[in-house]
Amino acid sequence: MGEEQSPSDVGGGNVPFSEGDFLLIEYTVTTKEDGKVVDTTSEEEAKKAGIYSPDEEYGAKLVILGEGTLLKPVEEALKRADVSQEVVVEVPPEQAFGPRDPNKVRVVPLRELLRRNITPRINEVVEIDGQKAIVRAITGGRVLLDFNHPLAGKTLVFRVRIVKKIEDLSEKLKELLHRWATSLKREDIGVKIEGSKVTIELPRTAVNVDNLGAVLRLFIRDVKKYIKDVTEITFIEKVPLAE
Amino acid sequence: MGEEQSPSDVGGGNVPFSEGDFLLIEYTVTTKEDGKVVDTTSEEEAKKAGIYSPDEEYGAKLVILGEGTLLKPVEEALKRADVSQEVVVEVPPEQAFGPRDPNKVRVVPLRELLRRNITPRINEVVEIDGQKAIVRAITGGRVLLDFNHPLAGKTLVFRVRIVKKIEDLSEKLKELLHRWATSLKREDIGVKIEGSKVTIELPRTAVNVDNLGAVLRLFIRDVKKYIKDVTEITFIEKVPLAE
Repeated sequence: MGEEQSPSDVGGGNVPFSEGDFLLIEYTVTTKEDGKVVDTTSEEEAKKAGIYSPDEEYGAKLVILGEGTLLKPVEEALKRADVSQEVVVEVPPEQAFGPRDPNKVRVVPLRELLRRNITPRINEVVEIDGQKAIVRAITGGRVLLDFNHPLAGKTLVFRVRIVKKIEDLSEKLKELLHRWATSLKREDIGVKIEGSKVTIELPRTAVNVDNLGAVLRLFIRDVKKYIKDVTEITFIEKVPLAE
Repeated sequence: MGEEQSPSDVGGGNVPFSEGDFLLIEYTVTTKEDGKVVDTTSEEEAKKAGIYSPDEEYGAKLVILGEGTLLKPVEEALKRADVSQEVVVEVPPEQAFGPRDPNKVRVVPLRELLRRNITPRINEVVEIDGQKAIVRAITGGRVLLDFNHPLAGKTLVFRVRIVKKIEDLSEKLKELLHRWATSLKREDIGVKIEGSKVTIELPRTAVNVDNLGAVLRLFIRDVKKYIKDVTEITFIEKVPLAE
């Protein structure tokens, strides 16, 4: 008696996730029609699918529920998921990249492309006046260009696994900073918390991040938005001057 | 006997300046032929000459002798100057923006400019394929374009005054940082020196400097080059999170 208990605590165990929660997730996205991998956090999957890029960072990614970086149906499914369980969500085109628009398919004279120094090849992407199009066909001096998004009209299948819910404040801060500058490794970021004041010791590579000011500003914006009760952040960059 | 005295100390007083010295200078540059002001550190002069820009920072500027930001003859004159004395230096085109090259004056059909959405006006600057030209004449559908630098062939007159030689290490550090990010006001930069270790407390506006990483790197490069015996620099940015 007199003890408070929130409804979601009743029964303990599988508390559903809610807005503002920090989750580390792994996922692979395929198109339903042909099972082609279009996005993945797995280096192995990316290599298998031929979409691997050395500039990309693979491995579990931070997602803040309610932030809108994930498509709505995926977010909703995650809220009801358990840690480690694989969730499969089908997202129809209407909730993904929209339906295909037949008006966005146009015929253009081949010589007009050549005049712009564009040599079209079937199934490759060309860029015209800043707009990207896929070359669908080339016949009799005419080129069929499709300006629809490559994923328009496709149903996407998300396979998502929540690796972990982050509760620790210092871990949240490291993840937030890392996501704005992936070259700043989580393990090289030092965090000290004293009451409502936070000190972040940045790795020495911080000065190699050209747009560091913008990165810190985005980080501060996120801290204000998703982490309560922080009144001051002090950033420290210690740089040894080797001869 | 046994005491050392460097030659430049003999007589005391007016020791000439030398490479690596930090000087704050004010200057106004005019063309010799018509006395037009082409550059100045004086807000008043800039306004009088009609070249004032609100984005420009007026007032004394840092110059490090030997760095090469000033034209050679001006640097040489400064080395022999006294503080507060106005030095006047004439620099012939050969040592400034080069002689005029008659081959850089070309006639172009008016319709070609119009086709590129350029409407030429006499004495105004147009840009063609990334190159700037002054429109000298428009007659009978033909336009005379001068691709020479506007100061090519001109003798420049520099009136320079050394406001101060900076000797204090912490003042040198503030000037160096300020010159790479003029929005960081000297008086808002905190400097602490402990032995060979330097701590720089940046103003809170530092996170508004998008390219902060690049700024810090340029600063570090200059410290290594022009200030000896610094083994470590620690930057601190303290940001209060107002609600």
